[in-house]
Amino acid sequence: MITGVILAGGQSRRMRGRTKALLPFPKKPLIQLQLEEMSKCCDEILVITSDRRTFEPVIKDIARIVPDIHPGLGPLGGLVTAMNHCSGEFIWLVGCDMPFISSSAAIVMHNTLKMTQAEAIVPIEEGMVHPLHAVYRARSKSVGERILAEQKFSMMAFLSAIDWLDAPPSYFEQHHIPFKFTVNMNTPSEYEQALPTTASSLRFQRDTLTVAEAQSKIAPFIGSSEEEKINLTESFGRYLAQDIFATQDVPHFRRSGYDGYAVRAIDTQGASHEVPVQLQVIETIACGSVPKRVLTPNTAARIMTGAAVPEGADAVIMLEMTDSAELPAGLKVQIKKEMKTGDNITPIGQEIRQGTAVIASGNYIHAGTAALLATFGYMDVPVYQRPKVAIFATGSELLEVRSALEKGKIRNSNSYMIAAQVKAAGGHPFIMDVLRDDAAAVKKAVLAALEQYDMVITTGGVSVGDYDIMVDLFDSWEGRLLFNKIAMRPGSPTSVGIHNGKLLFALSGNPSAGFVGFELFVRPVIAGMLGGTEAFPRLITASLAADFTKPSPYPRYVRGVYRMDEGKVWVEPIGPDKSSVTVSLLDATCLIVIPAGGRGLRFGDQVQFIAIQHN
Amino acid sequence: MITGVILAGGQSRRMRGRTKALLPFPKKPLIQLQLEEMSKCCDEILVITSDRRTFEPVIKDIARIVPDIHPGLGPLGGLVTAMNHCSGEFIWLVGCDMPFISSSAAIVMHNTLKMTQAEAIVPIEEGMVHPLHAVYRARSKSVGERILAEQKFSMMAFLSAIDWLDAPPSYFEQHHIPFKFTVNMNTPSEYEQALPTTASSLRFQRDTLTVAEAQSKIAPFIGSSEEEKINLTESFGRYLAQDIFATQDVPHFRRSGYDGYAVRAIDTQGASHEVPVQLQVIETIACGSVPKRVLTPNTAARIMTGAAVPEGADAVIMLEMTDSAELPAGLKVQIKKEMKTGDNITPIGQEIRQGTAVIASGNYIHAGTAALLATFGYMDVPVYQRPKVAIFATGSELLEVRSALEKGKIRNSNSYMIAAQVKAAGGHPFIMDVLRDDAAAVKKAVLAALEQYDMVITTGGVSVGDYDIMVDLFDSWEGRLLFNKIAMRPGSPTSVGIHNGKLLFALSGNPSAGFVGFELFVRPVIAGMLGGTEAFPRLITASLAADFTKPSPYPRYVRGVYRMDEGKVWVEPIGPDKSSVTVSLLDATCLIVIPAGGRGLRFGDQVQFIAIQHN
Repeated sequence: MITGVILAGGQSRRMRGRTKALLPFPKKPLIQLQLEEMSKCCDEILVITSDRRTFEPVIKDIARIVPDIHPGLGPLGGLVTAMNHCSGEFIWLVGCDMPFISSSAAIVMHNTLKMTQAEAIVPIEEGMVHPLHAVYRARSKSVGERILAEQKFSMMAFLSAIDWLDAPPSYFEQHHIPFKFTVNMNTPSEYEQALPTTASSLRFQRDTLTVAEAQSKIAPFIGSSEEEKINLTESFGRYLAQDIFATQDVPHFRRSGYDGYAVRAIDTQGASHEVPVQLQVIETIACGSVPKRVLTPNTAARIMTGAAVPEGADAVIMLEMTDSAELPAGLKVQIKKEMKTGDNITPIGQEIRQGTAVIASGNYIHAGTAALLATFGYMDVPVYQRPKVAIFATGSELLEVRSALEKGKIRNSNSYMIAAQVKAAGGHPFIMDVLRDDAAAVKKAVLAALEQYDMVITTGGVSVGDYDIMVDLFDSWEGRLLFNKIAMRPGSPTSVGIHNGKLLFALSGNPSAGFVGFELFVRPVIAGMLGGTEAFPRLITASLAADFTKPSPYPRYVRGVYRMDEGKVWVEPIGPDKSSVTVSLLDATCLIVIPAGGRGLRFGDQVQFIAIQHN
Repeated sequence: MITGVILAGGQSRRMRGRTKALLPFPKKPLIQLQLEEMSKCCDEILVITSDRRTFEPVIKDIARIVPDIHPGLGPLGGLVTAMNHCSGEFIWLVGCDMPFISSSAAIVMHNTLKMTQAEAIVPIEEGMVHPLHAVYRARSKSVGERILAEQKFSMMAFLSAIDWLDAPPSYFEQHHIPFKFTVNMNTPSEYEQALPTTASSLRFQRDTLTVAEAQSKIAPFIGSSEEEKINLTESFGRYLAQDIFATQDVPHFRRSGYDGYAVRAIDTQGASHEVPVQLQVIETIACGSVPKRVLTPNTAARIMTGAAVPEGADAVIMLEMTDSAELPAGLKVQIKKEMKTGDNITPIGQEIRQGTAVIASGNYIHAGTAALLATFGYMDVPVYQRPKVAIFATGSELLEVRSALEKGKIRNSNSYMIAAQVKAAGGHPFIMDVLRDDAAAVKKAVLAALEQYDMVITTGGVSVGDYDIMVDLFDSWEGRLLFNKIAMRPGSPTSVGIHNGKLLFALSGNPSAGFVGFELFVRPVIAGMLGGTEAFPRLITASLAADFTKPSPYPRYVRGVYRMDEGKVWVEPIGPDKSSVTVSLLDATCLIVIPAGGRGLRFGDQVQFIAIQHN
């Protein structure tokens, strides 16, 4: 009997915090693929993780979740945990980031191991040992625990303490098992390389994904843009690329809250309107000037709002509470109120303590951000570079904007629409020459742009007509197609691929479909590159302000307007009533999500929408 | 008995559509001032206007509103209307844009006129006749009506038909009446000149205005920015300075809605899956290509989505409804559905007709706008120039951002906060050198900036401390102070002045007060200069998501966040819980308006808020 063990405790740092076990591969979460493979030879499967909540919904009752008894101690801690919990003698250990684990390899290793007295059998290739995807005897747990107790945490430390067999590629070749089961994916680029390449023709064979599934296919490839430093005055509207810390206390001196007099509270005891206390004024402290004298008993200093309180003083009294007739020689002031220690003085650091993280990386730089950056002396501001986005329109029918019209042709408007969306999202748009219907030229131009820019967007050429050149490109290129059909209207043929870490978005040529495709799939990527944490657009609930009687077998993203009225949120479609697709984009402030099926919606029904950020 | 008559029918074109009669002068609506003056000598007052709704709330029962019986025919039409409706013999006629009308002048003119047989008495100065602010006999109405019937509409035409007396300045001087009652205000600049100059010292004598009153003082001076033409790709985020018209029909040719075949509907009669009709394919029409042949009976043309439908064809059938086996020599197609004339063809101009105004001046240029501009060939886009805004911080305590801290001093953060607000509003910020506490230098710098920029903003120096230099400036300059105290917190000493048509905003130096002052008073001006129609920020109703127990004698503008949740709008203050004023600006997405008085507000109470546009 073999117990399959998946180690799912890692932090996925290099995968930018995404849970590697849940990456789609190519359609299912990776761990599901592994569980299916393990089920072929294992009577029992354990998933070692401290994150039960994340895994339970995916694993269901196929495997048992066992909390790591040595969390943070790496694979050896996980293996020892498994040895403590398994029911049988043998453990097939794998990492959760290995897409090609092989039950055939596990079976042959198990067969070999049980014929010997060795404690483990481990694949080895060109001197590289692969303790993940190896088979162990559960009885060596005491050795493992000793090694951990000795503060040695590496698998190699464990292996050097036991007797183990090595299984080279030739061993597996004998059994016709290709030696690729040790592949793991630590980075998005390793993930991209591991994904299957495009099937030979996807033109008419398309898997339909939901919008959420399609977004989850893109998510692993959202990287961070590079950092650059720019002048504070140029930084408005950009995104911070570093956490910003308070370089000082605020205030950094004891600050007067009012125009008035700095006093010693003790001197004002018993003061009232009827019986004022009289103090000698020894100094006037303007904003920005440094007090020169220390208050001694029965003295006061005239002080302005925001100025530094002099030593000796422990309260400030408002001008209105004193006799404004300080005039007689300007030396005396009548105090008409008893003050307490600390009155109207802001202590050092009360607002912000030096060293506090005040603004997190990824924040948009607006007026409040700018004020804080200035306060802490950040005249050179670390911001994310604007992602450079190449934009191609495709189609021989397209004219330049300056051209006179010709029959059958229209001016290229999509490139400008998408460029405006790119700019609004925080990217830097580059409008490229229109791609005509020449497959080789298209491929050359798109691949060159993928080299030079951070991502590429095309519009048109994605459906299945004779001249749909983007379909041809995805059929013939070396990159990976992530998806090419989405259960939504408009924009169902929206296709996205990845090539050397760069995303290629092939949006529909229909203007509203291109618009929707951008908002759902491209904007989140740009936002993520700029440090955004909430990648995909938030769905907001509202009441429908008009009937929408057109049922649809697919979810629809309908252009609409939302408004906040008398405390309630309302949305209203503007698409169907407007004659022109493009004109309705003028006024749209949201995309209303109309779910699939049903018999249409009525006034007052609850729906969800995505707000469009025009800027 | 004299009947006072105010002509309030004009279109106020030169005053940018504002109702001149309602301009504040300096605190009350101008017409209210006129009614008070007329009440001194008139037993009856008529206001001639076609806009009862606007005037009724201001006029109440002090005067009678009489609809112009000759609307659009100018003052003479109004005078004849008044002659038809007045109860007495004499009419004192004035225009609604005259701030200095004089009952004394009316009385002496009336006394003179009634001793003669003349029909009118009219002031005259250096050859200039002033038929508005003159006294007429009601009996000449038949003459007036005859002149109008002769299609002569000028007051001079009327005067030349009657016997009238002229009243030169010397006539009024005899009665010690200054000859300034004929002044009228056609333009914002004439309005500015007519406003009273700053009182000698406003330091401690401030009239408190409501926020709405203060906004209405600024409104008459909101002009339009100049126009410039820029490239479409540079125009995103700017504001259109002209109405945009469709330069062509959309579509401008009969457009196919599908991939399929263009056919003659008549040829498809009786076609079905079982009994298809077979047609000869004579051409393939790609997008952008021009059909070369005319469909004759029993022929069809292969056609792509968006391509031009050939002459002779009157329907397009989807590819899916044909036998895809067009293969045998590629010449025949099986049609499996009966088509109707017009099926799947978009007629010329169906979406947009040539000449339609598609985008109004003042619109923000976003993705949808860009698409339409491109469609209609607008590669050079008329936009409003960004208003140039000079920003001064005041105060000797301010350090440059790059400076090391010194005791008692802080870095200048307000200038950068305001600059970010200016940019977000669509303006072009210019950060000027900090103004130290030297009154002469401040005045020189601010006046020079008012010459060179479209407006000037200062922060700090507006309250009544010893070093409040903006107060000194308003005391001593040649401009007009519009207000210097507002019933609101924060920002009550916010002051605004006008000098040679340029606005000077003196905001509070407290960061949150400066922020609020900008949003309430400056942003609307920039928005108006960029063609915005809804000048002052819209108040939105929401439920309070937390108690706000601090009552205030003034309306408060509290920094908060709003959210749309389960179809409802919620707001929550973030100010009071945050230690630092500036830090709470980081997260604020709105200003919650807490009304004056009351005993604080509770969770769930309805409040109003202003959304902050950070970009």
